[in-house]
Amino acid sequence: MFSFKNDYSEIAHPRILQKMLDTAYIQADGYGLEEFTYEAQDIIKKKINEENVDIHFVSGGTQANLITISASLRAHEAVVAAESAHIVVDETGAIEATGHRIYTIPTSDGKIRPEEVKSVFEENHDTNFAPYPKLVYISNPTELGTVYDKNELKAIHDCCKELGMYLFVDGARLACALTLDDVDIKFEDLPKVCDVFYIGGTKNGALYGEAIVICNDNLKPFFSWSIKQRGGLLSKTRVMALQFTELLRDELYLDLGRHANELAKILTEGIKEAGYSFFVDSPTNQVFPVFPNEIMDKMLEKYRFQTWTAVDDKTTAIRLVTSWATPKEVCCEFVEELIRISK
Amino acid sequence: MFSFKNDYSEIAHPRILQKMLDTAYIQADGYGLEEFTYEAQDIIKKKINEENVDIHFVSGGTQANLITISASLRAHEAVVAAESAHIVVDETGAIEATGHRIYTIPTSDGKIRPEEVKSVFEENHDTNFAPYPKLVYISNPTELGTVYDKNELKAIHDCCKELGMYLFVDGARLACALTLDDVDIKFEDLPKVCDVFYIGGTKNGALYGEAIVICNDNLKPFFSWSIKQRGGLLSKTRVMALQFTELLRDELYLDLGRHANELAKILTEGIKEAGYSFFVDSPTNQVFPVFPNEIMDKMLEKYRFQTWTAVDDKTTAIRLVTSWATPKEVCCEFVEELIRISK
Amino acid sequence: MFSFKNDYSEIAHPRILQKMLDTAYIQADGYGLEEFTYEAQDIIKKKINEENVDIHFVSGGTQANLITISASLRAHEAVVAAESAHIVVDETGAIEATGHRIYTIPTSDGKIRPEEVKSVFEENHDTNFAPYPKLVYISNPTELGTVYDKNELKAIHDCCKELGMYLFVDGARLACALTLDDVDIKFEDLPKVCDVFYIGGTKNGALYGEAIVICNDNLKPFFSWSIKQRGGLLSKTRVMALQFTELLRDELYLDLGRHANELAKILTEGIKEAGYSFFVDSPTNQVFPVFPNEIMDKMLEKYRFQTWTAVDDKTTAIRLVTSWATPKEVCCEFVEELIRISK
Amino acid sequence: MFSFKNDYSEIAHPRILQKMLDTAYIQADGYGLEEFTYEAQDIIKKKINEENVDIHFVSGGTQANLITISASLRAHEAVVAAESAHIVVDETGAIEATGHRIYTIPTSDGKIRPEEVKSVFEENHDTNFAPYPKLVYISNPTELGTVYDKNELKAIHDCCKELGMYLFVDGARLACALTLDDVDIKFEDLPKVCDVFYIGGTKNGALYGEAIVICNDNLKPFFSWSIKQRGGLLSKTRVMALQFTELLRDELYLDLGRHANELAKILTEGIKEAGYSFFVDSPTNQVFPVFPNEIMDKMLEKYRFQTWTAVDDKTTAIRLVTSWATPKEVCCEFVEELIRISK
Repeated sequence: MFSFKNDYSEIAHPRILQKMLDTAYIQADGYGLEEFTYEAQDIIKKKINEENVDIHFVSGGTQANLITISASLRAHEAVVAAESAHIVVDETGAIEATGHRIYTIPTSDGKIRPEEVKSVFEENHDTNFAPYPKLVYISNPTELGTVYDKNELKAIHDCCKELGMYLFVDGARLACALTLDDVDIKFEDLPKVCDVFYIGGTKNGALYGEAIVICNDNLKPFFSWSIKQRGGLLSKTRVMALQFTELLRDELYLDLGRHANELAKILTEGIKEAGYSFFVDSPTNQVFPVFPNEIMDKMLEKYRFQTWTAVDDKTTAIRLVTSWATPKEVCCEFVEELIRISK
Repeated sequence: MFSFKNDYSEIAHPRILQKMLDTAYIQADGYGLEEFTYEAQDIIKKKINEENVDIHFVSGGTQANLITISASLRAHEAVVAAESAHIVVDETGAIEATGHRIYTIPTSDGKIRPEEVKSVFEENHDTNFAPYPKLVYISNPTELGTVYDKNELKAIHDCCKELGMYLFVDGARLACALTLDDVDIKFEDLPKVCDVFYIGGTKNGALYGEAIVICNDNLKPFFSWSIKQRGGLLSKTRVMALQFTELLRDELYLDLGRHANELAKILTEGIKEAGYSFFVDSPTNQVFPVFPNEIMDKMLEKYRFQTWTAVDDKTTAIRLVTSWATPKEVCCEFVEELIRISK
Repeated sequence: MFSFKNDYSEIAHPRILQKMLDTAYIQADGYGLEEFTYEAQDIIKKKINEENVDIHFVSGGTQANLITISASLRAHEAVVAAESAHIVVDETGAIEATGHRIYTIPTSDGKIRPEEVKSVFEENHDTNFAPYPKLVYISNPTELGTVYDKNELKAIHDCCKELGMYLFVDGARLACALTLDDVDIKFEDLPKVCDVFYIGGTKNGALYGEAIVICNDNLKPFFSWSIKQRGGLLSKTRVMALQFTELLRDELYLDLGRHANELAKILTEGIKEAGYSFFVDSPTNQVFPVFPNEIMDKMLEKYRFQTWTAVDDKTTAIRLVTSWATPKEVCCEFVEELIRISK
Repeated sequence: MFSFKNDYSEIAHPRILQKMLDTAYIQADGYGLEEFTYEAQDIIKKKINEENVDIHFVSGGTQANLITISASLRAHEAVVAAESAHIVVDETGAIEATGHRIYTIPTSDGKIRPEEVKSVFEENHDTNFAPYPKLVYISNPTELGTVYDKNELKAIHDCCKELGMYLFVDGARLACALTLDDVDIKFEDLPKVCDVFYIGGTKNGALYGEAIVICNDNLKPFFSWSIKQRGGLLSKTRVMALQFTELLRDELYLDLGRHANELAKILTEGIKEAGYSFFVDSPTNQVFPVFPNEIMDKMLEKYRFQTWTAVDDKTTAIRLVTSWATPKEVCCEFVEELIRISK
């Protein structure tokens, strides 16, 4: 049975694995202090059209989040995030384990707005009885598949700058945000609209690896000390570098994200055609249709996917995730099957 | 120039990379809850001849150490380790960053003895002015390439049990300890002589990955919560599992360790023949010859290696590391060159 | 101008200060290992009618909270509390700074219910993606002056026991909960309805000091290690002991709490008589009347108190706090003045 | 039996307690934001002849240490201290519990030298494998009663400034360092020779309380957030302020320190006269004579004191501590008794 459970069900894009195999015995120094890593850093700088950044590679998203946040904050400082944020619901309290509170903002679409950030700041910054709000964490796309465009990011970043806060953009699924026809946000915009972000590899064709890009000079010094201290510095950093080089030396990275988006669109349009609505409107590779429970159960006989939340007694929102590796035929068959059983 | 700087200079054994390539598109659930992971766990259980263990995979040694230690200790408890231990000298205070002190024991060969553990315990366990010594951390082989045999481990473990302490064996280079002709320690001994250990992949042919094996029932509950909280739980845990399956389904893992040991022996014997002594006697894949500085400089023109420590004004101990990927010819040439320039 | 801002505006009850002066030069060993401390512990055990408890003294409430919680939890475990709880709104992220998340429950009266605890537990205990809910923190009285009676506490405690959780009762203002005519909760009930609680001194006549009483055997071992490690172990612990001895050797502690409650009642009844309502119905020493802003401003010309929250554009909830030291006349005058200006 | 075990055996100087009693019912706002606290801060600024400092009050030495250190360091930074330092041997790993390693320097007299600091720095500052040495912690007097004079402090401070490190001086027994005839260090020197220090109250006549004085502007922002977060901010901060006002408004604070030193001198000279040597030469209120074990045992029949360390099979170093409250007669009698039994 095909699984729409997530975008890390397959190992990695063959081009990446072949590259590893081809270079298996080429020696390189450890911990990122060597040419393979420098090459990947250069390619990323070109892609984002910005030389004045520091780039570090870590093996996964929770690591990227906890290292970036704990390296950026002093002990009395806190994070602001959506209540649906990955650091809130999916990381076992990883941020708190480094000593920092997360102020959460309620949200129906996974996105937060500048005025909400400002409100949290106003309520909590001027008394030593509350941890000081210092960093805003968002994901683009969000956990609900929604996307911030360039202007929205700029507005949050401007708000952060005004308040003396940092903006950190989790880009675990960044490729899907950068490849939508009607959403204006590109690689080269990113350094201009946040203080630090990461380019996700694990969910977009890489075997593992996230590339953290630090734009704000304040956040650069000693960052690699933090990576090492939190266990995030791999001796073979060069292998993560190799993957990003392979993904970014041409259009592969964006092509894979576009592929996932396009297949999600097939699902979305088919599901609409079959007469169903959605828990949230997502243009990216996660779609959240609401099915009557008996329809959901029938589809579960043929496909694997995650139930998201009960909408009422009789209907449930589910999550379907497409990826760089999802075949188009499977999505078409899913829709056909849905239409068939819905008649 | 060939590098003897470490045992992670190459990417991974081709058999492992080929296996990834062959199975790139096979779907599996995330976070280790799937068949690839279960298979690797079963193979490890067979290798160590013990069913009653919990097995977890993390991506690197510092992670394995900080997760295992912080998951095992309450806030007021401390670690005991050699002053040359990896957690003391190579991990940027990772253990302290989780809140725990390390009591260090001076050592000339990287090993610690039961009476030294007992002494630290006696001095620090009965007053609430000192953190309570609760876990002994050792590496086998040690950072200096020396090895604990079965009886030595058992003696430390018995000491720990008597004192109510845990014994944790870092096995980053475990394969090299298990494949010496004259050192009696085997896979199946490990669960009997410690509370938790790990089987190192990164330094012995794997791309990345360490397999933590928990033997003591006290340490098992909620361990995976700690892995996730510290950023160590990879979504594609299945890829680490696949690597251990490939390394352990036959004798590959031990063969690779034996290869590294044998090449180290070529170096050791050649260096002796050339008339030089050693900073420490190491039977495994790290050797520490002491060279006159001009000899060291000449060898550095042809080979890359790490200077370890100045012995006096005129001589320096260096570190040569062999690995699963080191070619025999290179070691022979190294020796020949050394003999040639030493005449 | 008289201040109703809090219950720690005065130094301490003269009986306590006189006792210190009388015994200033009597020597005692440090850190609680001496007769003055043992005597206070014995008196507390008699008051609560339970011998099988451990008793520790720390200097303030935030310390009592962060030490008790961090000593009780493993790294992956979390706290459940009302969103208005002292640990949430008044302690600068002290709990998170020890590594633990607080799950918050919305509440209008400061109290939480067993079914709410259960709901948080059910949603978060069975996945390693969420920190494990292990300890429920409540205050009695709450931050809003409301009170849990014996049955309510027992219901939460039973719920905790069923779920394998601990119940911790912050008793910073405990005297005010124990001295209400129509609320059934007494000193001797406490060990039966929670796992650990503290008897607040600072806000009820003591100079400083809170007595932590550990009822659950699981939480007793090594507690004093945690106190010392967090900086909570005072060398002159004997002085905190002396204060509790003086407060508890007769009825002084309860008399002071009753006094505060009675004066609060004078305020409450007078404010009702003057025609005003309350933000929350509190029977204890904190009352929260809602005043038109111009009335509030006029009262602020004659009295000091805290504005709590704006209710709407024209009215504001304020907080009036009475204490062991508040004179009855001042409360009567406050009411008279209010009635006068409200006509 | 009179106790020479420590300098916190008595409660507090009667002048302090009387002042509390006299002002028991005077209201003041909480948390140091009121006149009593401002007055104490002003008096301290005058004493040290420096306006440009921030002053905070906490209740004990371990708190002062852990708060100052954790507030001053980023996560990857470490402390340098003598291996006999209070933070190393007497605080249950409090510094590590906030996430920071302590690099220790061996010492026979409790003091460390600039070249030793420099050596630790050189070995550990330029690799991301070691926590970055950022703050030097010393006590004056040290744990062994020895004293740094002005020039010695200046030399360490100059070294720290050169290396970009901070110097923190623990002044738990500061009064004893400031009142020696032949040691040149005065209140007004302190802001010039360190970045932050504290004036100890608990061991010199106060009931409790240490006054942290921050000289370096870098360390001032948000310090009170850290105090609150670590549980160190007492609601009745005004009571600590009152004590420092009373101690420092005239010469009481220094008089009490001088008294302790003078009585220690009586002990030292008497013990020398009786023919005994010392474990370390201390000019302040802790003296460390080495007694034959049978002499030690006989003295223990009449006096209480701490055994420090066994010197050999037959002799033991003990610790005698005098204080502001020690009567001169007791010291004279101690010496007489010693001489008597030594004949």
